[in-house]
Amino acid sequence: MSTELVECVPNFSEGRDPAVIDSIVEAIGSAGAKILDRTSDHDHHRSVVTFAAPPESVGEAAFRGVRRAVESIDLRRHSGVHPRIGAADVVPFVPVKGVTLEDCARIARQTGQRIWEELRVPVYLYEAAALRPECRNLADIRRGRVPLPDFGDTTGHPSAGVVVVGARKFLIAFNVNLQTGDLQIARHIARAVRHSSGGLPHVKAIGVLLASRNHAQVSMNLSDFEETPLHVAFEAVRVQAARYGVTIAGTEIIGLVPEKALEMTAAWYLQVQNFVPGVILEHRLENR
Amino acid sequence: MSTELVECVPNFSEGRDPAVIDSIVEAIGSAGAKILDRTSDHDHHRSVVTFAAPPESVGEAAFRGVRRAVESIDLRRHSGVHPRIGAADVVPFVPVKGVTLEDCARIARQTGQRIWEELRVPVYLYEAAALRPECRNLADIRRGRVPLPDFGDTTGHPSAGVVVVGARKFLIAFNVNLQTGDLQIARHIARAVRHSSGGLPHVKAIGVLLASRNHAQVSMNLSDFEETPLHVAFEAVRVQAARYGVTIAGTEIIGLVPEKALEMTAAWYLQVQNFVPGVILEHRLENR
Repeated sequence: MSTELVECVPNFSEGRDPAVIDSIVEAIGSAGAKILDRTSDHDHHRSVVTFAAPPESVGEAAFRGVRRAVESIDLRRHSGVHPRIGAADVVPFVPVKGVTLEDCARIARQTGQRIWEELRVPVYLYEAAALRPECRNLADIRRGRVPLPDFGDTTGHPSAGVVVVGARKFLIAFNVNLQTGDLQIARHIARAVRHSSGGLPHVKAIGVLLASRNHAQVSMNLSDFEETPLHVAFEAVRVQAARYGVTIAGTEIIGLVPEKALEMTAAWYLQVQNFVPGVILEHRLENR
Repeated sequence: MSTELVECVPNFSEGRDPAVIDSIVEAIGSAGAKILDRTSDHDHHRSVVTFAAPPESVGEAAFRGVRRAVESIDLRRHSGVHPRIGAADVVPFVPVKGVTLEDCARIARQTGQRIWEELRVPVYLYEAAALRPECRNLADIRRGRVPLPDFGDTTGHPSAGVVVVGARKFLIAFNVNLQTGDLQIARHIARAVRHSSGGLPHVKAIGVLLASRNHAQVSMNLSDFEETPLHVAFEAVRVQAARYGVTIAGTEIIGLVPEKALEMTAAWYLQVQNFVPGVILEHRLENR
């Protein structure tokens, strides 16, 4: 039992007041979850908390975090460059060890139901936890294409909005900062590289402006790095940016990245002809 | 005690007859060592076996491998593109977990002494196990600049030559195959990138010709990848090759590579601005 692990990566619509996120992180930890990471972005006005727990307690930890967010974040007073529809905006569960995607979908649905029943915040179920095909994609829910939530009514919580809860494979949140302040360039690049407008499979991307640093940014989610690796997405952005005479100023990983994603990237960049995971010392020591 | 681990990476002058290496690997394993890897190269006529064992038994495992090599490899009948001076050519001990470089130097000296006393093969001690400054560098020993061995006399074993035994930090053996059959180009590049002729610190490099594949190759040893990373050596070769209008056909990692080396390479290539080892999921799960 102790080797089973579920990751949860809730996104909250607060990125400027550290005390609020501290409080949410404390609530999550109070259920015994292991906090792996927390990232806040001032321009996005958004924070991402990454934690892990066994399947028996991960839902409780997520619930406590959502409850604290509902108590302390008022969406009516929110403004930030990243789209959002809830104080606790997205709550995905991710299989890490010894659990399946379906196990995580089950936990997501139970947690979603509880959020409505106890907090009166309407809930949508997305990705692998979706009960309806039109809810699979987060972007569709955000754009208001799904009027009826899975739990609750259409009114929405006055200050906390709605929560989108689901299950998905490990997602890499990867932002590419461009050497330009022109938001339109970032938007064009995002449109070219993301799947929904004809680009790479398993890539979501939007263009945003980081006013505090005067960089336009392509903000991406890579939802299956084994199918569409980090370096493929990175090179796609680089190629598109070059068409505008723009170079890459740097990148950021938001939250965590599986070592395999970096191994694949390094092996590709170095053009290693004989690469197998077994050439890595730590894998061989553990018989992986 | 069980968490202490020493790696040993003996190089043997046999790369064409698999039965010979099978026999050597079996001898090493008979002492309880964990075989991590074995690589043979036909053109180099050389094999590298990588194994790990606790400090109490790693010397015995290495000794058994050397003894089998001395019994079954006759240097007088050897020809290959990689320089060598012994049937068991180099035997380095490397700290992996819970042991220091000095611990490994101690094991190396004990093993070296035994090789002379029981097998009558003269032994040089190199790198961190060297008793004399002129023996630190393997290349100097190979070039015959050190007439007197540390154990034994100058005669040399009739069929097995000498053995060089030592201790060093983790070394990455990294070969870059060039898109040319011109050995001179590989030699020029090697000269430019290696430390001994004014290039990068912690880099040894030679140019060789892989006749079986008609590629010239820059064969490198990176003796401190934290100081001179994989990608720095790789880019140096690429830049030098470009001066000859030659591109890189591919690369090979010989033996094992620590995950940190690949992580550093990926983070550099992706231009990650916020990279710390803690963004890697597996590190965070283990509190690293």
